[in-house]
Amino acid sequence: MDDGKLLVAVGAAIRRHREGRGISQEGFADSIGMHRAYYGSVERGRRNLTLMTLVRLCEGLDVRPSSLLSEAEAAARTSRRR
Amino acid sequence: MDDGKLLVAVGAAIRRHREGRGISQEGFADSIGMHRAYYGSVERGRRNLTLMTLVRLCEGLDVRPSSLLSEAEAAARTSRRR
Repeated sequence: MDDGKLLVAVGAAIRRHREGRGISQEGFADSIGMHRAYYGSVERGRRNLTLMTLVRLCEGLDVRPSSLLSEAEAAARTSRRR
Repeated sequence: MDDGKLLVAVGAAIRRHREGRGISQEGFADSIGMHRAYYGSVERGRRNLTLMTLVRLCEGLDVRPSSLLSEAEAAARTSRRR
């Protein structure tokens, strides 16, 4: 799987879940104690997250890391077929 | 989720998949171009893997990262209830 594509898809999935909870980037970053600029780069797919950072983000979004990753894998596969 | 527990569960899931394919630690580490000692520490749950390292491991084991992570989450939850 293309490295960059999955990271972008993970960032987009995180954004979808955050927006679905009606929280701003700044509000969410603050709520999980993450630097706002770093969090912005996560949503843009610019960060090769560690598992523990993924867990921290997912706990804040109340979603299982495996389901968020599954969403991202599906999106990355779909974007490959276009 | 307890950080350490998930990493140990991820390492155990990776080991299960590797053993299920009848490959030695050394053989598998070599097959994905990973240093053997590093790979051993991954199986022991000592490494906070990045997503791209998880993808590389899972491609070598022909399993989706999300399903391996889901296995590990389930095991980590079960080990909490004991």
